Amino acid sequence: MTSQVIRYGGDYNPEQWPREVWDEDVTLMQRAGVTTATVGVFSWAKLEPSPGEYDFAWLDEVLDTLHTGGIEVILATATASPPPWLAHRHPESLPVTIDGVRLAVGSRQQYSPSSSAYREHALRLVRKMAERYARHPAVTLWHIGNEYGCHVPRSYDEESAAAFRVWLEKRYGTIDELNRAWGTAFWSQRYGSFEEVGVPSRMPTDGNATQAIDFDRFSSDALLELYRAEREVIRSVDPDAVATTNFMGLFRHADYWAWAREVDVISDDLYPDPADSRSHILAAATRDLMRSLGGGRPWLLMEQATSAVNWRPINVPKHRGQNRLHSLQCVARGADGILHFQWRQSVAGTEKFHSAMVPHAGPDSRIHREVRALGAELKDLGDLIGQPVPAVVAIVLDWDSWRAVEQPSTPRQLTYDQTIYAWYEGFLRRGVAVDFVAPGADTSGYRLVVAPLANVLNDAAVSRLGEVVTRGDVLVAGYQSGVLDEDLHARLGGYLGGAGSALQRALGVRVEEFAPLPDGVTTALTGDLAGQGTVWQEIVIPVGAQVVSAFSDGFTAGHPAVTRQDATGGGVGWYVATEPDTDTRDALVDRWLTDAGVEAAFASAEPGIETVVRGGRRFVGNHTPEHRVVTVAGTSVELEPYGALFLSAEGADR
Amino acid sequence: MTSQVIRYGGDYNPEQWPREVWDEDVTLMQRAGVTTATVGVFSWAKLEPSPGEYDFAWLDEVLDTLHTGGIEVILATATASPPPWLAHRHPESLPVTIDGVRLAVGSRQQYSPSSSAYREHALRLVRKMAERYARHPAVTLWHIGNEYGCHVPRSYDEESAAAFRVWLEKRYGTIDELNRAWGTAFWSQRYGSFEEVGVPSRMPTDGNATQAIDFDRFSSDALLELYRAEREVIRSVDPDAVATTNFMGLFRHADYWAWAREVDVISDDLYPDPADSRSHILAAATRDLMRSLGGGRPWLLMEQATSAVNWRPINVPKHRGQNRLHSLQCVARGADGILHFQWRQSVAGTEKFHSAMVPHAGPDSRIHREVRALGAELKDLGDLIGQPVPAVVAIVLDWDSWRAVEQPSTPRQLTYDQTIYAWYEGFLRRGVAVDFVAPGADTSGYRLVVAPLANVLNDAAVSRLGEVVTRGDVLVAGYQSGVLDEDLHARLGGYLGGAGSALQRALGVRVEEFAPLPDGVTTALTGDLAGQGTVWQEIVIPVGAQVVSAFSDGFTAGHPAVTRQDATGGGVGWYVATEPDTDTRDALVDRWLTDAGVEAAFASAEPGIETVVRGGRRFVGNHTPEHRVVTVAGTSVELEPYGALFLSAEGADR
Amino acid sequence: MTSQVIRYGGDYNPEQWPREVWDEDVTLMQRAGVTTATVGVFSWAKLEPSPGEYDFAWLDEVLDTLHTGGIEVILATATASPPPWLAHRHPESLPVTIDGVRLAVGSRQQYSPSSSAYREHALRLVRKMAERYARHPAVTLWHIGNEYGCHVPRSYDEESAAAFRVWLEKRYGTIDELNRAWGTAFWSQRYGSFEEVGVPSRMPTDGNATQAIDFDRFSSDALLELYRAEREVIRSVDPDAVATTNFMGLFRHADYWAWAREVDVISDDLYPDPADSRSHILAAATRDLMRSLGGGRPWLLMEQATSAVNWRPINVPKHRGQNRLHSLQCVARGADGILHFQWRQSVAGTEKFHSAMVPHAGPDSRIHREVRALGAELKDLGDLIGQPVPAVVAIVLDWDSWRAVEQPSTPRQLTYDQTIYAWYEGFLRRGVAVDFVAPGADTSGYRLVVAPLANVLNDAAVSRLGEVVTRGDVLVAGYQSGVLDEDLHARLGGYLGGAGSALQRALGVRVEEFAPLPDGVTTALTGDLAGQGTVWQEIVIPVGAQVVSAFSDGFTAGHPAVTRQDATGGGVGWYVATEPDTDTRDALVDRWLTDAGVEAAFASAEPGIETVVRGGRRFVGNHTPEHRVVTVAGTSVELEPYGALFLSAEGADR
Repeated sequence: MTSQVIRYGGDYNPEQWPREVWDEDVTLMQRAGVTTATVGVFSWAKLEPSPGEYDFAWLDEVLDTLHTGGIEVILATATASPPPWLAHRHPESLPVTIDGVRLAVGSRQQYSPSSSAYREHALRLVRKMAERYARHPAVTLWHIGNEYGCHVPRSYDEESAAAFRVWLEKRYGTIDELNRAWGTAFWSQRYGSFEEVGVPSRMPTDGNATQAIDFDRFSSDALLELYRAEREVIRSVDPDAVATTNFMGLFRHADYWAWAREVDVISDDLYPDPADSRSHILAAATRDLMRSLGGGRPWLLMEQATSAVNWRPINVPKHRGQNRLHSLQCVARGADGILHFQWRQSVAGTEKFHSAMVPHAGPDSRIHREVRALGAELKDLGDLIGQPVPAVVAIVLDWDSWRAVEQPSTPRQLTYDQTIYAWYEGFLRRGVAVDFVAPGADTSGYRLVVAPLANVLNDAAVSRLGEVVTRGDVLVAGYQSGVLDEDLHARLGGYLGGAGSALQRALGVRVEEFAPLPDGVTTALTGDLAGQGTVWQEIVIPVGAQVVSAFSDGFTAGHPAVTRQDATGGGVGWYVATEPDTDTRDALVDRWLTDAGVEAAFASAEPGIETVVRGGRRFVGNHTPEHRVVTVAGTSVELEPYGALFLSAEGADR
Repeated sequence: MTSQVIRYGGDYNPEQWPREVWDEDVTLMQRAGVTTATVGVFSWAKLEPSPGEYDFAWLDEVLDTLHTGGIEVILATATASPPPWLAHRHPESLPVTIDGVRLAVGSRQQYSPSSSAYREHALRLVRKMAERYARHPAVTLWHIGNEYGCHVPRSYDEESAAAFRVWLEKRYGTIDELNRAWGTAFWSQRYGSFEEVGVPSRMPTDGNATQAIDFDRFSSDALLELYRAEREVIRSVDPDAVATTNFMGLFRHADYWAWAREVDVISDDLYPDPADSRSHILAAATRDLMRSLGGGRPWLLMEQATSAVNWRPINVPKHRGQNRLHSLQCVARGADGILHFQWRQSVAGTEKFHSAMVPHAGPDSRIHREVRALGAELKDLGDLIGQPVPAVVAIVLDWDSWRAVEQPSTPRQLTYDQTIYAWYEGFLRRGVAVDFVAPGADTSGYRLVVAPLANVLNDAAVSRLGEVVTRGDVLVAGYQSGVLDEDLHARLGGYLGGAGSALQRALGVRVEEFAPLPDGVTTALTGDLAGQGTVWQEIVIPVGAQVVSAFSDGFTAGHPAVTRQDATGGGVGWYVATEPDTDTRDALVDRWLTDAGVEAAFASAEPGIETVVRGGRRFVGNHTPEHRVVTVAGTSVELEPYGALFLSAEGADR
Repeated sequence: MTSQVIRYGGDYNPEQWPREVWDEDVTLMQRAGVTTATVGVFSWAKLEPSPGEYDFAWLDEVLDTLHTGGIEVILATATASPPPWLAHRHPESLPVTIDGVRLAVGSRQQYSPSSSAYREHALRLVRKMAERYARHPAVTLWHIGNEYGCHVPRSYDEESAAAFRVWLEKRYGTIDELNRAWGTAFWSQRYGSFEEVGVPSRMPTDGNATQAIDFDRFSSDALLELYRAEREVIRSVDPDAVATTNFMGLFRHADYWAWAREVDVISDDLYPDPADSRSHILAAATRDLMRSLGGGRPWLLMEQATSAVNWRPINVPKHRGQNRLHSLQCVARGADGILHFQWRQSVAGTEKFHSAMVPHAGPDSRIHREVRALGAELKDLGDLIGQPVPAVVAIVLDWDSWRAVEQPSTPRQLTYDQTIYAWYEGFLRRGVAVDFVAPGADTSGYRLVVAPLANVLNDAAVSRLGEVVTRGDVLVAGYQSGVLDEDLHARLGGYLGGAGSALQRALGVRVEEFAPLPDGVTTALTGDLAGQGTVWQEIVIPVGAQVVSAFSDGFTAGHPAVTRQDATGGGVGWYVATEPDTDTRDALVDRWLTDAGVEAAFASAEPGIETVVRGGRRFVGNHTPEHRVVTVAGTSVELEPYGALFLSAEGADR
């Protein structure tokens, strides 16, 4: 990104409108401070109306019109949704559900990630696009595909099964090694050859856990491979091309740690529900995730709604000011661009009730007035471009753990992302910046490393977490951490990486039994830190750790709930054997921050208020419908409902 | 109908019983005042035990036996459910679900509406039936099919897909016109030819809205076409044959405005749930609908239960007297006949626990005693035959709007029929008679026209509604009216038919934004008419209208909730941007009636009590379990629990 | 069983562990008092890694190792789950769901009960097993298959359809007789030949009730036929072989009255949910059922968990002592052996979080310490081996009634097993021993026969129940009894077996109408015995009986709810037309016991405490988390939370 203006704009789909509207669009964009339009995301059927017959003239004109108007173009490869003719000629390209239902044409994304017909036709189109537009002066970034896997994260068709077998053979080498990893000695599942292995479609009962996670891994890889193939086609035409694809926040079906390595710019789509008073937590966390995926580099908000979306059962509009709040939150947490889906609200199609920058009511409307005001405001924030967001607290985030804890036949149904948000919230309420890290990552820059539900840890990751303490920093591990290795085999001898592991030593405990709590049941914690737990209990055996809180009744009565160990090496190891309620979590965060010597921006928890520092300027945002006065790092700040501002080093300047 | 006795009786299935029971049946029918028996609805397998082999002897005897006993026969074409041999020989005739599951033999109605094998075999049987019985003296009416679409309103099989393509080509002419109407520029859905178009079976996500509504329309038409084909066969044998098929109240899957044009007598099946204290509202509304479908002509209640049904999870019996109440309600609202399913309760089969006129316990039973008493009572109501039910209030009812508001990817999940019942209830509680009208219908006979959820309005319908006001009458439009045109394209520039439409002018408002409410949330209304709203809010911009009520908090605070405009032409236009709660709705109805100069039978709302005038006699019914004393049009009336009576012009006579 | 020690141990799956662990296993087993290991349940894939290629060497070594260690072996036939190669070569062997989905390899039990390929390969393996191991000195019992039907109780594939037709032709002889029994005159379902008949897969609406129950009966028979075929192969090798298969308590899909005739030892798997404070009722009832299935012979607990299972959404561990309590409950109710799934907790596979006798934490753990203590304690209970459990109260239990009342299109959704548990609980709370009997069984040894929901009664069973009263004993019939015959045809003329039946005469009532209650609604009972009813009401017409309680309001107001008749013959007949609440049921049980002259161990209801006498020793168990002091048959007993003890004739001895 060479501009010193924060990118501003959205998806632009002029093929839905008569030609005369295009000129009005450019005029309105200019007035609204729009810098950027994403073009072509769903244009395949118009660009290639029948196989091998191309119509680029209209797109030439769109790009020229935008360029003349001073609007840069993010050009999509247009492969997000194939035209109906593809399925008509290649019905085997359609995805198949776990129940064997072949999905139909009529919405979007109707292709199996492993379809050779889809891949062949998509890459042919991408080559045409790259040859024609790679050097168009309007085009600054390639948008490959779109929201990979959002509707079809996996497919159970024959081509997928064949590709899965190839993937497995590459991973395991021999069928014996697969049998070992999958534990097929259980339930008579031993495979005689890779030919016998299938995808985990509907079964009589809960299936093999390792087969299931391998199919999750394969499916993420299959989508990523599609992205990579398109990118390579573009690079073969223009080696300097810059490419991205839009992530979807904390998305279950794509391991973004792997994906992040393949994109030149991290970009994200996010649609927090305005009806959910807690959605700002999800929003803040995913903004921090995008920054973390890029190793701290600026990222791009590729899509958000100006107001309501269309795909929830009840689609509530954003409050006045709330889209500004969401946008500034992105900038404060590392974004260098704010784009929307979409510029002009459609009159037809599935998303005609999705809000846009120009609504059905036209430019003379609340929504468009806010769009213009935001465009003007972003112009003044150019000094933040490229600036980092410093953090000394890290939360371990891991797709394998996500996949594992949400499998059936585990001790209790758990929701990984909601647990991550809950633990993140403790820091958000104190105004403490957080990065996310992969479990095997180097965490030496952090003073506090928090590992909630770090269920799957390979040997290296177990050691890495142990090192946090031995090097003198603070480690917090949550219940169910280190229970499984990368094959989802149980770690024997007290979990937490297994008997005598670096993690057990760092924490000074081992775990003998699990005692999940029924829904809605709480457990009282007593001791130095009293409180309430939910969801989970364990029988924890201290081996060096002090008991901070103990369970007070039921099966676990008298056993530790929270422990703390002053470890050799000067570090501190905490273990938390339950899901603390909000107040208890606040008290724990306070203790952890103290141990780590980290100062919080808020003296105590401030629900609904956030703050973060970027480029020396402090952002403060109010996600509540009330006027609020808060003290942030010593400064008193007044905020309107859904209000937000940036403070300079000296105080409030906006 | 030539008889001057109200028809009374029910479905008669003697093939389930030994021959000796038939004579007892006729004797019992005579004692019970039964005039009419519907015969042959599910007799195909007995009439044609194998393809082309017919056995009519038993049916000859049934018709002769009934005729000799003085019982007229409504003769079914027997095509409601094909015999097992059809699917055995033509498995492609079986219907297919949205998930591709081909349904099996073993219940009923197991045919695709577009199956050529079903159609061919059904029409062959109908020809035989017509040739044999069209001039039988017992037969007074043909009952074609049965409850078309009740279990299989649509099918996703190959023949349906082919028929859908034919239907689309007829509707749109060219694929370009289909692409325009369906908005296929969105999401890369452009079709190259009709061959590429399919039925909307399971898709990756919400599909094309216009494809979906077209498949709804096609499916209703496909069933209607089956009805028409059978009727034409009968008419080719007997040009004077009178034909009906039984409707099912306010039924989602068949557009009865179109169907009503094809039947000689409107007939209806209705089964209000005795466990639901509000089911009398549904009952009254659908009785009024049947009258309205026939343009005011008398109609026939083809089926009801004497007590419990079998197909709910919990099947509660009717209270003592409640079947009489339901029956008299029908007569009062325009029926000239009261029939039941069925005469004698089956010992086997799916509906053996469905109540009947002769229950399992035999004739010496509460149910049969009530059957006899009702038969005697109906004999005295012959003066009402053919009499009209006058109404000056009309509610707009529209299948396209129903289909549209219940689609996914709309601002909020809505339930069209429940909304219609709610708005209807306001008039029922005041004893005001209501007709239903199609959106494009001539309403010049009505002083008040009410349009709740009139979501889809074509240009003509927009104009029609505007005319209500310009001609000096009162129009009430509810939220979400006029949002879409017939292609489900959004109307730009303030909805309500679009910028500057006759509807916007009539109401003096335009609508800028939607703000649906979460389930269970209410919104306080303030102003001249205070109250509570639910479900929906909008940002309404007055352009001439006065604000009657305003929203008091949240996103819409201060914006109009209810507006009223004294329009040029002398009429009045009301707009209601929320779903009023019961009390608020009562207050609104009061205001609308005043504006329209309509006097109500009840001075204020009477929950659970209904009244209506037919042929100069006023009916009053009590749908509650309490004794009630009410003042109806100035007369004090006492009613037993579930009691009912007819008042003469001078007062109570029954 | 020749041992005079109660069998103790569990499933042993050494193929999941390295060879060196096997020796540690035997040592740990010896220390824990383990006598018995079940081997080979899921070993097919290891024993026959490819079709016709066998590897028995490892199993030879396992059996020898156990035998040397003094551990007897229950040898499984290893056919519970076929290897992946079977489905790879015979995809038609996979089961098919009601929706036509063919289930995949990857969990277990993936075979259609009617698959010829499965049957052929399974029997070939069993022959090899029998030839090799029938005379191995370690093997004392054959464990055929495993939990037949637990995941796949039925299949809708082509082979099942063909086998169903054969089964129907055997049952009905002619298609006319099938048409009569199925009542195909209803809904045009008449079949022309058996070829036209199919399995009841997904249909347009509720299907034929008799087809449905016949498919239930066929499916139970198809599984039983698999068991019988394996047993015959073993007997052809060793005529003295002793065989069992593990039942699953009160299991909907297998008619264990028929199965029990085919097993030499009744064995059972039971997993009461520790999170359910009422699960001890289910546990006690199924223990009594196992004893009853064997006609009073001792039975074997084949599987239980030492603590948590893995297959519930939330898997709570057993409390300290609770596994001992469950085990002693079995012994007290007739078991001569206590086995577990499984010996050593797996590290991989679907059930790795299922507790075991050696948990993940290793032998130094709460669970294993309890395992050892229980082994020691069971050694002292050898005097109970072979001893009977006397009972003079019988509850009628019937799979056809279960199947019938849970069908759709019945008056109300009912849950058969929960109703049985509720009626059983009344006796459990008073410490009265209960046997279960089939509806047509000889009950002459019982003083009180209780028939809840005895919905389906053939003529013989109707007479049998009538005889209870005529011979001078007490009969209690619950609502919905005797409504249907074995073809599910309604009994005409007042239900309870039909007009003038022995059952109507015994009770002195007939039933005219049903009036099911909505969920959560209660009905007040007045009269001699006041109380509350739920779920159900009826219109009961007394014909000789006295009214004990009457319904007090609503549709049934004034009609009898509970009746009692002093019948000719000296017996007493009770009829209960509602589901009594707990207190009302306690009062009724008191009256019934008085009428029958049966003395209860507890003077009044003792919730959560149970007692039963076996071999002259009285067992008392406390299923609550509180200390309890109770008086049992005149003796005061003190019990810890989840505590249990055996009293000698003189008093407490343990």
